[in-house]
Amino acid sequence: MTKTTTEHLLEHVAGNGLLHRRLFLTQGAAAVGGLTLLAAQPVAAEPLAIPPWMQAPGTHMSAYGAPSKHEAGVQRVVGGTPNVQGSGVSFTPHHLLHGTITPNSLHFERHHSGVPDIDPAQHKLLLHGAVRRPLTFSVESLLRYPTVTRIQFLECAGNSGQNLNAQPPQAPCGVIHGLMSCSEWTGVPLSILMQEGGVEPGNNWVLAEGADAAAMSRSVPLAKIMDDAIVALYQNGERLRPENGYPLRLFLPGFEGNMSVKWLRRLKVVKAPVMTRDETSHYTDVLLNGKALILTYPMEVKSVITSPSTGLALEGPGLYEVTGLAWSGLGKIRRVEVSADGGMSWAEAALGEPVLSKSFARFRLAWQWDGGPAVLMSRAVDETGAVQPTRASLVAERGERPNYHNNGIQAWAIAQGGEVSNVFA
Amino acid sequence: MTKTTTEHLLEHVAGNGLLHRRLFLTQGAAAVGGLTLLAAQPVAAEPLAIPPWMQAPGTHMSAYGAPSKHEAGVQRVVGGTPNVQGSGVSFTPHHLLHGTITPNSLHFERHHSGVPDIDPAQHKLLLHGAVRRPLTFSVESLLRYPTVTRIQFLECAGNSGQNLNAQPPQAPCGVIHGLMSCSEWTGVPLSILMQEGGVEPGNNWVLAEGADAAAMSRSVPLAKIMDDAIVALYQNGERLRPENGYPLRLFLPGFEGNMSVKWLRRLKVVKAPVMTRDETSHYTDVLLNGKALILTYPMEVKSVITSPSTGLALEGPGLYEVTGLAWSGLGKIRRVEVSADGGMSWAEAALGEPVLSKSFARFRLAWQWDGGPAVLMSRAVDETGAVQPTRASLVAERGERPNYHNNGIQAWAIAQGGEVSNVFA
Repeated sequence: MTKTTTEHLLEHVAGNGLLHRRLFLTQGAAAVGGLTLLAAQPVAAEPLAIPPWMQAPGTHMSAYGAPSKHEAGVQRVVGGTPNVQGSGVSFTPHHLLHGTITPNSLHFERHHSGVPDIDPAQHKLLLHGAVRRPLTFSVESLLRYPTVTRIQFLECAGNSGQNLNAQPPQAPCGVIHGLMSCSEWTGVPLSILMQEGGVEPGNNWVLAEGADAAAMSRSVPLAKIMDDAIVALYQNGERLRPENGYPLRLFLPGFEGNMSVKWLRRLKVVKAPVMTRDETSHYTDVLLNGKALILTYPMEVKSVITSPSTGLALEGPGLYEVTGLAWSGLGKIRRVEVSADGGMSWAEAALGEPVLSKSFARFRLAWQWDGGPAVLMSRAVDETGAVQPTRASLVAERGERPNYHNNGIQAWAIAQGGEVSNVFA
Repeated sequence: MTKTTTEHLLEHVAGNGLLHRRLFLTQGAAAVGGLTLLAAQPVAAEPLAIPPWMQAPGTHMSAYGAPSKHEAGVQRVVGGTPNVQGSGVSFTPHHLLHGTITPNSLHFERHHSGVPDIDPAQHKLLLHGAVRRPLTFSVESLLRYPTVTRIQFLECAGNSGQNLNAQPPQAPCGVIHGLMSCSEWTGVPLSILMQEGGVEPGNNWVLAEGADAAAMSRSVPLAKIMDDAIVALYQNGERLRPENGYPLRLFLPGFEGNMSVKWLRRLKVVKAPVMTRDETSHYTDVLLNGKALILTYPMEVKSVITSPSTGLALEGPGLYEVTGLAWSGLGKIRRVEVSADGGMSWAEAALGEPVLSKSFARFRLAWQWDGGPAVLMSRAVDETGAVQPTRASLVAERGERPNYHNNGIQAWAIAQGGEVSNVFA
């Protein structure tokens, strides 16, 4: 190894300090062998003292563990709807998390009339309407059917909607973009249950209804039901949490979250969309030309840098990991690019393996911050070739007001001194 | 579709009712179109009553969620060591879980002197010994380094050891095999940190020491440290739990769990294994010929059926999902076979996608139980070609006594009536 400066091997590949993604690829470390990353400033080793926690035995095993008291601030941010009991949202704090799996305790929530307290021994799923054989399934009976397991995201149609306001909200990344989460879902393919019932030809829609007090209901194309929809029973290994549909929910990979009806109690095979309250009064994208998009299903290609982001100030010039999440309701993420100069130049980020369909991909890039102003952005492309749009292009169509399906590019401004803020760049 | 019986399409591929894995493959449902699986006995639909939980709004959002009260029995089974505070194990209840991810609250535990209560602002990791530049890393400084994310298992060397007793333990699957779990781990590649320090040539081992009261210590080959070892900071998205090493642990994919030292505080580069108390008094496989295997690292290819298993009685003849976990510390699982007749005939199971290296693979097969006696077994093969051995072959080498690295085949006997018991078949 004859190179003597980091500049030779830590190649700058885009403006304002973005480095080649090789640092994150297999054998990446070998490529920078013998060099100092200066990601932090480790001090010379000193004799280690024996800390208090090594001077006496620690606590015992536990039946169901909990986070460290030092992480008590890692919580969902709860936002209710005034005067409406149990209605509202809670956000996943993505700026405090890493990886791609969202812990069940931090999965986002959106309830229309709160979390029902369901006795699983009493709960039934009814399959009726245009079927040859109407059926009811108990939870116990569903547990005997063949299952599938997949890691997939769920995103509320209203996620990131505040970024269509006229002014950029100065909130943590998780509050702006926290109505999305990613879990390992295990359940019974609906194609199997539909064939148990026998769908009558000419009926291409399914009404799904939840067992909450709102009887939240959506119309789902039969094609989706027969493709990759499941009745989910387990999330990240354990049974669903109450706020995620216990004892069972519909799960429609890639579709707007609201359609994956929680506490599922009824599937009715019908000829046409039912036009339920929930698919007409909500979840409709109003355009500037006065028209509205309704029954819009897949969540479009999108990405967001989770760190650095609002509230996570940089400590000083030097090397940082720029990292975030990318996903598409239409398939796999093909590529994510990062800019540190507000979109003038872009560098390809490293994607964590494996890249899964309709799932979070974690992207990363190393960034040598010189201490001056910078604007960080990320832009994802999915396997269909769809490119994440700018906020400006969405605003041109929809105006500056909160809306659904906002997949516009997020920009974070880094100020001299390291403070991070949300900007429309 | 002219076939009229399930027998045509639900092909029996091995003795005693095992069906072809096509039910679990893509388009599987289409292959059995129009047929009744009779996995359960759904009754004809009745008008659905409005249950109590739909008659009033439910509970509000929560900052950090918890399981349903109806799942309160899904806990780790805690086993302590008499008269030793904080020493012992707790087991992951795999017989009550599904998928491949283990929730953090249910990840197995093995402590040698309890769980230390570490202040992350005070904790340091020292890199010293034969390095050009001894360094200490704070948690904050580590959070700025490049990271990787991988889904990988962790298995205690002592897992399944009771199955080498003379009599088969009649305990739930999770208690026999619950010293293993699988998580998404995110952390800093140790290859990068080692290059920050600069290893002096001729030193091929690293002593790793934990900050618990036992100062649990193991010697690790430098080759493993430079290959795929990480300093783990996040588990399943959130920061490590206290019982899993908060604020940071060594993670050595595929190696016996004890070596992935929790609460890591010191890495010392040395010439040879240190022969610590923990690698000589424990984690040594004593053979019948009087010799002992020490410094045995990768956990060998293994599988276990999690359902049906002890305590999960079958309800009556009919279709069941036979499912379990397979893993290898040497790479990917290539194949899992299932037998329902005690090993006389075998059928290939379906593997959940994606199959990842040094990770849990979920396998599944449909089984038409005729109500008579049966013995269910699974046998895994990994990508190196290694085949999971029989218990008998391990006993021939080691005798009938608890031991480490038991990867023998597990057999579950189904009695007339559906009760399940652990048998040595």
